[in-house]
Amino acid sequence: MTKFSILILGSASAAPTLARNPSAQLININEQYYLIDCGEGTQNRLRQHKIKFQRLNHIFISHLHGDHYLGLLGLLQTMSILGRTLPLNLYGPKQLKELVDMNLAYSHSTLKYPLIFHETQTNQSEVLFENEHLTISTIILDHRVPCTGFLFKEKPKPRKINPKAIKRYEIPKYAMDNLKRGLDFSFPDKNEVIKNELLTLNPDESYSYAYCSDTKFNERIVPQLKDIDILYHEATFLHRDEKRAEATYHSTAKQAATIAKQANAKLLIIGHFSNRYKDLNVLLDEAKTIFANTQLAQDDAVFEMV
Amino acid sequence: MTKFSILILGSASAAPTLARNPSAQLININEQYYLIDCGEGTQNRLRQHKIKFQRLNHIFISHLHGDHYLGLLGLLQTMSILGRTLPLNLYGPKQLKELVDMNLAYSHSTLKYPLIFHETQTNQSEVLFENEHLTISTIILDHRVPCTGFLFKEKPKPRKINPKAIKRYEIPKYAMDNLKRGLDFSFPDKNEVIKNELLTLNPDESYSYAYCSDTKFNERIVPQLKDIDILYHEATFLHRDEKRAEATYHSTAKQAATIAKQANAKLLIIGHFSNRYKDLNVLLDEAKTIFANTQLAQDDAVFEMV
Repeated sequence: MTKFSILILGSASAAPTLARNPSAQLININEQYYLIDCGEGTQNRLRQHKIKFQRLNHIFISHLHGDHYLGLLGLLQTMSILGRTLPLNLYGPKQLKELVDMNLAYSHSTLKYPLIFHETQTNQSEVLFENEHLTISTIILDHRVPCTGFLFKEKPKPRKINPKAIKRYEIPKYAMDNLKRGLDFSFPDKNEVIKNELLTLNPDESYSYAYCSDTKFNERIVPQLKDIDILYHEATFLHRDEKRAEATYHSTAKQAATIAKQANAKLLIIGHFSNRYKDLNVLLDEAKTIFANTQLAQDDAVFEMV
Repeated sequence: MTKFSILILGSASAAPTLARNPSAQLININEQYYLIDCGEGTQNRLRQHKIKFQRLNHIFISHLHGDHYLGLLGLLQTMSILGRTLPLNLYGPKQLKELVDMNLAYSHSTLKYPLIFHETQTNQSEVLFENEHLTISTIILDHRVPCTGFLFKEKPKPRKINPKAIKRYEIPKYAMDNLKRGLDFSFPDKNEVIKNELLTLNPDESYSYAYCSDTKFNERIVPQLKDIDILYHEATFLHRDEKRAEATYHSTAKQAATIAKQANAKLLIIGHFSNRYKDLNVLLDEAKTIFANTQLAQDDAVFEMV
């Protein structure tokens, strides 16, 4: 069973409070960590959750509003002080690199590890990262500054060998890889074909997670999110504050739920809450009127794929 | 009695921990607030101490190492979001302004209040701020990048009227201001002079506070610190790590105490502790061998002038 979890390190919008830190999420996919956004204090939040900084190899920054990146410099520098030598991959808008470089230059500092910067395109979706198991792509959002979300998609997993069937049909070991790939089997010296489904079990499910913050209501992202397992969508405002949402290029809880419904998501988690709402249940209740399986992405919440 | 207190918001050196935040101190002089340095998370620290952000009108940044300024942008932006309209004075090295401007430009943001930037000279001491009661000057430190400390000095206070003497000598009200200034009194129609000291009491003491972080051992600052009431001096290292201190332009506890002794300080507080020392008493004990009245400037500590 794959591990695929999302730890909410921050759920505030622009002005953080003691209860809600600025945006940051730690994605754990089979013990590989991916950090999405890095608001002020993220290094502290990682320490609170006993996450070893050096296990982070990929940091994704959605856009250059302070509540999404002002913790990055501190984290990069602390990693260096703590002795990191492994390369670190940083994904974000072009100017993020300039900001990092300028801060380092003015502090007469260098990082003791290679920082590999990957500039995100803000006009069309692209694959940022790919390995045997996973692709990570951008989602083009509609915000006051260029902004991308991130789509984590596990690749189809191998079929699982059925040990009892293997024994019964006396299948040789060399055939296992092809069976996992879904191929049928035949003995070299016989004409008989043994169907793959007699020898294997269905693979584990492949999960997907989408992070959509910050954005105004934008139905153009729906096709990319089709049948997503967990959709994080910002819900800065209640729908009664729709005009404020529109003006600031943010979404309401109702709008987030509408995207989840259209995308046929399995679970919607909402976050990036304006601190005008003391009781977040008003946002949750509003979203649930449109999309029942909604939860609050509050600080310290963990969501696991099931 | 004047209020003059120093609240330690952060005592860590470059790599903060859960117990120690990066550098920041809040100086309260008769309910006027002054913030010195603004490491990552300072806005959170101010909230923890229930300090209203809008009461801050002066922020002083010693130098451009991340642990001394990375919380500034977030604080400036939160002040704006919370509706500040009053001007804010920011004092620091020239490039601080560039960093602030660049971050704001890339986030397509403006502050909703005037930010008045005062560039600090890094080659000679200067008065940064002066009012009726107080001057704030820079102290030229010796660090890896240009760095200034800050010297808070109350001006001499007015002599206090002695009500009994005023009654006895039947001194008219119009004379009070001159008496507070220390002048003698004579009735317009008499030749007799009544000495000031018969009519007034000694003024309250005028206090001074010096913030010296970060710096290597530098005796050139001693004359400026002469007879200081409270000296904060960084003590990043133990003296057994003197070479490391020298290489990184920091001080040892022994060196901090030597400066305090030479300056004839009343109290030394040490901070900016390297996180290699789990028990800070080793630093305290080392300083005390040279200068007995030393205390640790740990997070949340408050020092009051007495």
